Amino acid sequence: MAYEILDESKIVPYLLNIPVLRNFFGTDRLEVREIGDGNLNYVYIVHAMEKPEKALIVKQAVPYLRIAGEGYPLSRERMSYEIRALQIYNDLIPKHVPEVLYADEAMSVVVMQYLSDHIIMREGMIEAVVYPDFAAHMGEFLARTLFRTSSLCLESAAKRQMAEMFIGNTELCALTETFVFTAPYMEHETNEIDPLIEKEAAALREDSDFKVAMLELKYLFMNRSDALLHGDLHTGSIMINTEETCVIDPEFAFFGPFGFDIGALVGNLVMSWVSHFERSKESAYQAWILKSIEELYGNFETGFLGLWDRTTQSALVEKGFIDKEGLKRYQAAFMQNILQESIGFAGAKICRRQLGIAGVADIRGIEEPESRARAEKMALAIGIYLVKNHKKMKSIGDLTDYLKEVKVQK
Amino acid sequence: MAYEILDESKIVPYLLNIPVLRNFFGTDRLEVREIGDGNLNYVYIVHAMEKPEKALIVKQAVPYLRIAGEGYPLSRERMSYEIRALQIYNDLIPKHVPEVLYADEAMSVVVMQYLSDHIIMREGMIEAVVYPDFAAHMGEFLARTLFRTSSLCLESAAKRQMAEMFIGNTELCALTETFVFTAPYMEHETNEIDPLIEKEAAALREDSDFKVAMLELKYLFMNRSDALLHGDLHTGSIMINTEETCVIDPEFAFFGPFGFDIGALVGNLVMSWVSHFERSKESAYQAWILKSIEELYGNFETGFLGLWDRTTQSALVEKGFIDKEGLKRYQAAFMQNILQESIGFAGAKICRRQLGIAGVADIRGIEEPESRARAEKMALAIGIYLVKNHKKMKSIGDLTDYLKEVKVQK
Repeated sequence: MAYEILDESKIVPYLLNIPVLRNFFGTDRLEVREIGDGNLNYVYIVHAMEKPEKALIVKQAVPYLRIAGEGYPLSRERMSYEIRALQIYNDLIPKHVPEVLYADEAMSVVVMQYLSDHIIMREGMIEAVVYPDFAAHMGEFLARTLFRTSSLCLESAAKRQMAEMFIGNTELCALTETFVFTAPYMEHETNEIDPLIEKEAAALREDSDFKVAMLELKYLFMNRSDALLHGDLHTGSIMINTEETCVIDPEFAFFGPFGFDIGALVGNLVMSWVSHFERSKESAYQAWILKSIEELYGNFETGFLGLWDRTTQSALVEKGFIDKEGLKRYQAAFMQNILQESIGFAGAKICRRQLGIAGVADIRGIEEPESRARAEKMALAIGIYLVKNHKKMKSIGDLTDYLKEVKVQK
Repeated sequence: MAYEILDESKIVPYLLNIPVLRNFFGTDRLEVREIGDGNLNYVYIVHAMEKPEKALIVKQAVPYLRIAGEGYPLSRERMSYEIRALQIYNDLIPKHVPEVLYADEAMSVVVMQYLSDHIIMREGMIEAVVYPDFAAHMGEFLARTLFRTSSLCLESAAKRQMAEMFIGNTELCALTETFVFTAPYMEHETNEIDPLIEKEAAALREDSDFKVAMLELKYLFMNRSDALLHGDLHTGSIMINTEETCVIDPEFAFFGPFGFDIGALVGNLVMSWVSHFERSKESAYQAWILKSIEELYGNFETGFLGLWDRTTQSALVEKGFIDKEGLKRYQAAFMQNILQESIGFAGAKICRRQLGIAGVADIRGIEEPESRARAEKMALAIGIYLVKNHKKMKSIGDLTDYLKEVKVQK
């Protein structure tokens, strides 16, 4: 059908017109409730009045920024990329994404499983909740989604055809280019810099070593199409509880460098670790975070290489092209490169969250100004170090060892 | 109009139905002559009977391999990519491509300027013809086409939109992946190996250092989208005389690594240089080739950096992001990388021409078998060296110095 914005009154008739959803709800009377936290989109829970657990999420993009209103246009085609990524994830790793029951690109609508028992991971981490299976789940998510959409797995035409499905996501890629790689490190009207760290921000604006390293990372983001990325994989894009881990909101999806999703996640874990010097002062939780960074990366690496070793034919490595020993050497250099780029992107993500628009609640939510500024300065110093020195890192342990030293110096 | 194959009888009515072409020819009586050397496509010269210099080229792709017949399907959409690349080149650097008067993607037809005074550069080089302006012309062609289609020049959305125009060219990209980067270095039915170099070919099939280096180059080809490439820029894709230089046949066009077109051209110059040890034994011509390699690369580099220095705003480098000294350092590393990748790709192109399908006439056309085999062995040894050692090269002079040493050792 042609695009129209679904207000609450139109949602139920729209859903019941779709066989799979009519089947899902049967003859139950339905209730619609808008979820307040959609900044970009309208998000509703639709549930059976008599059985509230029988519920689905309905998400619709509007052709403007929802929180700002129609004066701030943002093309609603972003939902098409979210739908395509969710569908690919549903195929590749269904247990770590919400089940998509229905999607309609023309209406910019997706209808999916309601994760009633999960919370946003960032909120859990602010409360120092341990998620024992997080590193295993997300390591597998990263290994599988990155490997299976790369030319290490797909044939040549299949890879390019999948990339073609996302190459139109220019608007959201440009947002990342501006707000992760550029604006925070120069004078820019969108920056939100705590006056207490203005000295550090000003010094960074003059740091040309940092700028050179940032341009290298930005260039990779713009010009390498290793695999399908989520594109915004921070702890606010993960719904979690102690047993389950679900990735949501892949509207920034595109084909980019392997390290970008890994780096986003690692960078957000590092920021949570920094925040707990001020928040909980509970070093056991911080130790869990560092261990989780190591396990997350280790699980990613093991999973990725495991998938690679079981693949005998791909666009890149034709069956019989290279002997085992040669392939092992190629893989070792390849994985080293992913590690280093991941750490570099983690640094970029950390820096931008201290200076640019959209800080993280872990740190910006610290109430006491001096305490918050200490966390911001520490995070920024770490981010700058990672951006400048990521090519020296040889293993994920080099990153956590460095962080432990930062802690001692503090 | 819907696609149909234009036989000679249909060409004139088709052309005269198009206003710009009707204007071109006026009321002249026209003659159509098929050019025999189209392997993939049908190519005709259409000229006024009374004024043969008043002529155009009409090129149509058919949905199969023209020389092999309908039993060898090859999608005719390759012509769409050739048309799009020619149109972009007509905008960017009209003096070094044939003028496109008319193009019709639905019919897979392009109508363009007839280059009556030019010959295929490879044929000229076999005859040891010096082209004094070649290095200036092609250096500028490479600088301009690569820079102006990259994220060093374009804005983010414009770059991705242009890349989108070529991402469907999967079939021809896959041909390169197979026939440049893979098949020649393993047992493969398409290989055409001179029995006199079978020992060298067999050794290369077991050389895992070479395979690792080749996988790195292949991975770049598949996963980096620096700029619009011609995709098959050998000396057979250049129409030339002592004053003019025109690039033709960009049907392999896609967004790939900067070094690939440069490497293709340099590799073909190196093969010509090798061939003249056997062909002309005229060291002055070989000296001209080496000087041309240096000047070609130098002109490319100067031109590329000149365009960059005059660009104050791009997707990559936002105005005011970095100071001059920092940008210079970034540029130096960036250009070094292009140099090394170009030399690596040159090596791949040289190797594949010795072992795979489609050798070069410069070398395979040498009649005396021992003489031909000497040239093949020398070219192969050079190609292998460049593939394995391209990351050690610091300037184009390192390449020509290496070649001069090869000559001495011979």
